[in-house]
Amino acid sequence: MAATRAYLDYNASAPLLEEARSAMIAALGAANPSSVHTEGRAARRLIEDARRDVAALVNAKAAHVVFTSGATEAAATLLTPDWQMGRGTVRMSRLYVSEADHPCVLNGGRFPAAQMTRIGVDRNGIADLDELAAVLAAHDKTDGLPLVAIHAANNETGVIQPVERIAEIVRAAGGVLVIDAVQAAGRILIDMSAGYADYLILSSHKIGGPKGVGAIVAAADLMMPKPLINGGGQEKGHRAGTENLPAVAGFGAAARQALAGLRDIDLVARRRDQIEVLVKTLAPDAEIFGNGAQRLANTTFFAIPGVKAETAQIAFDLAGVALSAGSACSSGKVGPSHVLKAMGFGDSLGALRVSIGHATAVEDIELFRAALAGIAGRRAGGEKAA
Amino acid sequence: MAATRAYLDYNASAPLLEEARSAMIAALGAANPSSVHTEGRAARRLIEDARRDVAALVNAKAAHVVFTSGATEAAATLLTPDWQMGRGTVRMSRLYVSEADHPCVLNGGRFPAAQMTRIGVDRNGIADLDELAAVLAAHDKTDGLPLVAIHAANNETGVIQPVERIAEIVRAAGGVLVIDAVQAAGRILIDMSAGYADYLILSSHKIGGPKGVGAIVAAADLMMPKPLINGGGQEKGHRAGTENLPAVAGFGAAARQALAGLRDIDLVARRRDQIEVLVKTLAPDAEIFGNGAQRLANTTFFAIPGVKAETAQIAFDLAGVALSAGSACSSGKVGPSHVLKAMGFGDSLGALRVSIGHATAVEDIELFRAALAGIAGRRAGGEKAA
Repeated sequence: MAATRAYLDYNASAPLLEEARSAMIAALGAANPSSVHTEGRAARRLIEDARRDVAALVNAKAAHVVFTSGATEAAATLLTPDWQMGRGTVRMSRLYVSEADHPCVLNGGRFPAAQMTRIGVDRNGIADLDELAAVLAAHDKTDGLPLVAIHAANNETGVIQPVERIAEIVRAAGGVLVIDAVQAAGRILIDMSAGYADYLILSSHKIGGPKGVGAIVAAADLMMPKPLINGGGQEKGHRAGTENLPAVAGFGAAARQALAGLRDIDLVARRRDQIEVLVKTLAPDAEIFGNGAQRLANTTFFAIPGVKAETAQIAFDLAGVALSAGSACSSGKVGPSHVLKAMGFGDSLGALRVSIGHATAVEDIELFRAALAGIAGRRAGGEKAA
Repeated sequence: MAATRAYLDYNASAPLLEEARSAMIAALGAANPSSVHTEGRAARRLIEDARRDVAALVNAKAAHVVFTSGATEAAATLLTPDWQMGRGTVRMSRLYVSEADHPCVLNGGRFPAAQMTRIGVDRNGIADLDELAAVLAAHDKTDGLPLVAIHAANNETGVIQPVERIAEIVRAAGGVLVIDAVQAAGRILIDMSAGYADYLILSSHKIGGPKGVGAIVAAADLMMPKPLINGGGQEKGHRAGTENLPAVAGFGAAARQALAGLRDIDLVARRRDQIEVLVKTLAPDAEIFGNGAQRLANTTFFAIPGVKAETAQIAFDLAGVALSAGSACSSGKVGPSHVLKAMGFGDSLGALRVSIGHATAVEDIELFRAALAGIAGRRAGGEKAA
């Protein structure tokens, strides 16, 4: 008998890797890493080992990694007008984001709405670089620097932004660049030593680590945002609160695997391509979003005319396939995806996202095929799902 | 052979309870609770079950529990001038805390220092209620309500604040009361249905649950602080970010145990009393802080003349006993405990904190006795540890 369930929703949360699971279980009994006694020092070592592993994933220095409770908190921390440089302060007077960013970036963190500018994206979801250059050129630095925050890869479409060019534009304008690498990490190579970004946002559970932990990775130790969470002085004062062991340990283990997994990311791409061939075969009129641009190897986002995404998502689920209609955190919400809207797709019935990983097997794809054949067949037979 | 290590530092982090460990391991594979598919809905159930268990610990409604990444984040969220009531806003114009509060409360969260008042404490660490009543009577409500935040029990001394009387004073002044119940939960009975506080701060890892999760518990659903972390709309919009499963599941299991454990908290008190008898026997001139007041059953904080706490802490550690000099999060720092300072103990050599739990056994106390005998003996022999 074939597998009974296929989990094809890695972009919502990747299944916990065996290595991350072991690291977590080994760390379950850990003490408070701030304690000075033997138990506390052992806990501290687990944190610092994980810090090195997370840094290595993006070729940064361990000392420049600040653990947070997740990517959303990391974004809320970085997106602030108030920054610190040594004992001095630095002000960011305006935040520039793209229309297709994740809500945690799009909402602007601690920036008031009046101090935010949203850059449009093209039909593939790529940020309009001319518009970015123009608004940055018009930025008045008397009140502060421009802060630009953008995703490296889109959570819904998998479309990859031209981060190197964005970085050049931001650098030329004397701005600061935050890259939300939540979906990109472990799927494309990120090299913080090569000027990729000034700050990176990472999430553990999107790379096969546990939920409840993420990180800010800085390119240098020059400047940091005013802490969002103050208290006991952990994380060099950048983020207070007892560190989330064992999640941090699991994050470290997942980061090691994610780095190693980049070597055979092509295998993931091949599976994704097989899925897209199935979509195009069983529903030739399907639209695959963002396929005119470079995309992550693991993601496909498509719409089938006459098929309402939410209804199809339930049909897939009943057929044993877990995928999502839009992104997970907005999947309970009414209304179309803000990403598709930003890309110029207005009144769509919604789209389905399949996102996979190294563990995705032939059996998973077979389950997907069978489910899609049923859904597309009912549509062909006149009983359109709507 | 006796146990080789005695862990007597529960107030820094209580050892993970077996029930919490099992709940975490069972939840390690959970999907994103916001996903609509079968896997997502199973994850959602784990969160909601835990919410009921955490609510039950303090006799609150499950719907009034908001999970955070820990108590420090909960404090940072609650301590803000900007609150929401339905679609309207409510302003708190000043924050009142006690001098002996935990740094995450003492720092005032999102309140500017100019909008904060610190209330003194007496020699036992009890907040000066006359001072509190006086400053609240003088509070000018034209700019907003008074927000009072205070700990239910001190993390260093275990001294319990007269929360019922504080609540009366705050209520009479038309203020809002936040109680930091991090150390009190599971050690004294807390009944949110009886007007104990308007908001409660809880930490999972202080009650035997995992690190990386805490909660805000509201007495009603009337009013909530402006969210600290925005994004995907989780926790009814009060706290964005993918929920920290499996830590939330572990927190729920620990809350169930903590509630049950209140029944035999007297056994814990008896062990603590044995420890204090040992201190007084081996070092008759030792001072036990806060013992003129009601204290948690599990905590003792003492100083031995001529014994420097930091040095003694290391000696205890080498002898197999994990305890702390001051609180964990400040134990790496220079300078005396701000709690002792607030209580009027100025130039002390520091104090040692022993904090225990239900699992503390006779063998642990024997290890403590042997270590203390050595330390006190060296002092008596003229080789004062300093």
